[in-house]
Amino acid sequence: MTTERLVVIGGDAAGMSAASQARRFRPPQELEIVAFERGRFTSYSACGIPYWIGGQVGERDELIARTPEEHRARAIELRTRTEVTEIDTDRGRVRTRDLDDGTESWTGWDRLVIATGARPVRPPIPGIEAPGVHGVQNLGDGQALLDTLRALGPGEGGRSRRAVVVGAGYIGVEMAEAMLLRGFDVTVLNRGEQPMATLDPDMGRLVHEAMDGLGITTVNGAEVTEVLTGADGRVRAVATADAEYPADVVVLGIGVEPETALARAAGLPTGAYGGLLTDLSMRVRGEDAIWAGGDCVEVLDLVSGRERHIPLGTHANKHGQIIGANIGGGYGTFPGVVGTAVSKVCDLEIARTGLREKDAKAVGLQYVTATVESTSRAGYYPGAAPMTVKILAERGSGRLLGLQIVGRDGAAKRVDVAAVALTAGMTVERMTQLDLGYAPPFSPVWDPVLVAARKAVRAVESR
Amino acid sequence: MTTERLVVIGGDAAGMSAASQARRFRPPQELEIVAFERGRFTSYSACGIPYWIGGQVGERDELIARTPEEHRARAIELRTRTEVTEIDTDRGRVRTRDLDDGTESWTGWDRLVIATGARPVRPPIPGIEAPGVHGVQNLGDGQALLDTLRALGPGEGGRSRRAVVVGAGYIGVEMAEAMLLRGFDVTVLNRGEQPMATLDPDMGRLVHEAMDGLGITTVNGAEVTEVLTGADGRVRAVATADAEYPADVVVLGIGVEPETALARAAGLPTGAYGGLLTDLSMRVRGEDAIWAGGDCVEVLDLVSGRERHIPLGTHANKHGQIIGANIGGGYGTFPGVVGTAVSKVCDLEIARTGLREKDAKAVGLQYVTATVESTSRAGYYPGAAPMTVKILAERGSGRLLGLQIVGRDGAAKRVDVAAVALTAGMTVERMTQLDLGYAPPFSPVWDPVLVAARKAVRAVESR
Repeated sequence: MTTERLVVIGGDAAGMSAASQARRFRPPQELEIVAFERGRFTSYSACGIPYWIGGQVGERDELIARTPEEHRARAIELRTRTEVTEIDTDRGRVRTRDLDDGTESWTGWDRLVIATGARPVRPPIPGIEAPGVHGVQNLGDGQALLDTLRALGPGEGGRSRRAVVVGAGYIGVEMAEAMLLRGFDVTVLNRGEQPMATLDPDMGRLVHEAMDGLGITTVNGAEVTEVLTGADGRVRAVATADAEYPADVVVLGIGVEPETALARAAGLPTGAYGGLLTDLSMRVRGEDAIWAGGDCVEVLDLVSGRERHIPLGTHANKHGQIIGANIGGGYGTFPGVVGTAVSKVCDLEIARTGLREKDAKAVGLQYVTATVESTSRAGYYPGAAPMTVKILAERGSGRLLGLQIVGRDGAAKRVDVAAVALTAGMTVERMTQLDLGYAPPFSPVWDPVLVAARKAVRAVESR
Repeated sequence: MTTERLVVIGGDAAGMSAASQARRFRPPQELEIVAFERGRFTSYSACGIPYWIGGQVGERDELIARTPEEHRARAIELRTRTEVTEIDTDRGRVRTRDLDDGTESWTGWDRLVIATGARPVRPPIPGIEAPGVHGVQNLGDGQALLDTLRALGPGEGGRSRRAVVVGAGYIGVEMAEAMLLRGFDVTVLNRGEQPMATLDPDMGRLVHEAMDGLGITTVNGAEVTEVLTGADGRVRAVATADAEYPADVVVLGIGVEPETALARAAGLPTGAYGGLLTDLSMRVRGEDAIWAGGDCVEVLDLVSGRERHIPLGTHANKHGQIIGANIGGGYGTFPGVVGTAVSKVCDLEIARTGLREKDAKAVGLQYVTATVESTSRAGYYPGAAPMTVKILAERGSGRLLGLQIVGRDGAAKRVDVAAVALTAGMTVERMTQLDLGYAPPFSPVWDPVLVAARKAVRAVESR
């Protein structure tokens, strides 16, 4: 039996899940596995970084699910601090560079997994590279930000230190919480109409109001034009067209884009968002022996029928597991997503799945909406908190198209009910009769999702 | 236009939801609505009684969603303390008795709703009527128990007072919590192999262990033979074949059975559990103008294809709403249930949906099981608590058959994902790729339900 070689580019969730899963199926004498990672760390939770910065997670290493040594102990030849600089699909090999000594070399592969992840968007704003301006994409970024916070020390003369967070999406609002927990006065500069542009603006407004209530200042329609520095070269303020916002530290939470320069240079197909395009088995389209997964690919949105770029650890892990099974001789497919996401700012919970109004419009779906206020538990049970649920249903058919939640106390994970209903193509009429768990500490007698579905039924009927 | 008369028997969830919904569709000049309730209260949450006893809910009236006066203000002629003693289907009338003055009379109906609820099982045990022995079925029961607790006062000489709870189903474990919160030493006498017989015994054992940890003594295989009284006639102990358990107060949590004596006397069809049988519109089978809903009916279990008796407020409310719509000229159906239930004992959360092993066997389904331990949040996130998930999938097809959860910190409502998947007839393979909400404060990167589904896939494949 000849030994095949699997090469994996990228040592985080998708890549190392693929490697681990392939190893479960096939022993080293059948399959050699070589993984390249340009950083020092593997298999860590980037999604956990805001909570490490905020102090809820004490140590960086708690975010690491599996260290390079643990991977190596499973017969995966992992080379950290080694960057892949070229993919040669004709000859089935990758060129790598050792980031410590600069050595370059070629490694051949029989099968290749591209899991290069995403890179933070850094708009070409003057001053954005100044000391005191931080991204939070990887563990190194997180450590640098914590070092900055430590160096800043407490504010002088009782004045709180000031943090400006640029961006009001998931990372932005999570970092707003983190900086608040670190004792900063926090201002969030949001380019859009309302924070959380992944929600409809009417739901985003509820997030805005709740952030106000938490003491976080959110400025909407704020396009950053410059990062201003002081005599010491450090950041001192962030400027928009209209105003200057003093800042001791700036956190960039502007989002990410697929890291696919290598793949594109190799002629591999990418989509409208720059992510690699794969088939259902997560194989790169048109390729026999190249797979891709995680933040560097686009995924099929089952509701809109379009590819989207959704960088999220849970998808990356699924991709990796499927890729590893398929390479190992098992079988798995990734059918696509419905666009579920949950987040929180302090005790405010935010969730969405499916399409927003503008998504539905963009793909030609006509819809009705219904928005209801309900509570997280029976109204009389201690801790019952208000919750707003917005639902989109297709005009005529009444098929569920999307659901958004802003609330507290267990609000966010209720979105999962809609995620499964979307996957099943359920109508809002059928949803009204779903047999969801009921007891006073967990839900009103009509679960908020059911209340929203009932109102949506009436909206469908009256349209 | 002639005015029709709708008569409703029973003033709680199903009956008054039906009345209210019918009223929304049709004004008083079209539809006269007369509702008879033998008690003093309407539309209250029986499910909330344990929390009122436990002190989490301060006042009885918080459990009342709508008072008789509020119903009357909506043009519903509500007669409390009035018992229906006969249904005359031939002549379309009911005989009633005023419980205060004994007056009897007949009231004719064009349409009838039977919502007579359920009555607690009171086994013929000697002494079960003794002072100090309490059911907790309705608000009057709850008040009587609270009066007993108040009269007992604190224990003498620093000794805790002792409560024996008979039964370890939902009501039993919820009342165990309530009595613990009231400062009692609590012993639960459970006839079965493990508490929570609505779970498989291996999951019930986890509940047992957790109750031990909370300081609640659970005795399994304990069939009560006698309630022993003291010289004052009050309860002093509960006896089983093997032992005597001293008790200052005894709470019966043995369950309920459909209250259908009236309906059976009128020749209406009942099922294996004694509940009324209805069609999909909640009309009594074989009848044109008689509907029934709530705890007095049997419901179709969509997974087993059999009727079951599931007394639960959330079903009763759905039934009432559907009956009211259909009577009012709208349209609704109740497709059936999948058997979802959630409960808690202090911070322990318990949930189930679909079939247990014995249910699957009873209807000829072959299955595999998988049980996993996971956590409620990312392992590194504060508050992450262990959670055990057990899943049943059909042999061969891999179709989900049931799911059970015992855990803490948001464990229970995760069962809703499985409830929707069951409704949609999903396989465990498809479930592994469900797009559930992920963020470290809400879930590990693989949601516990997905971890269970993955293990079930392997079990299906290896069988």
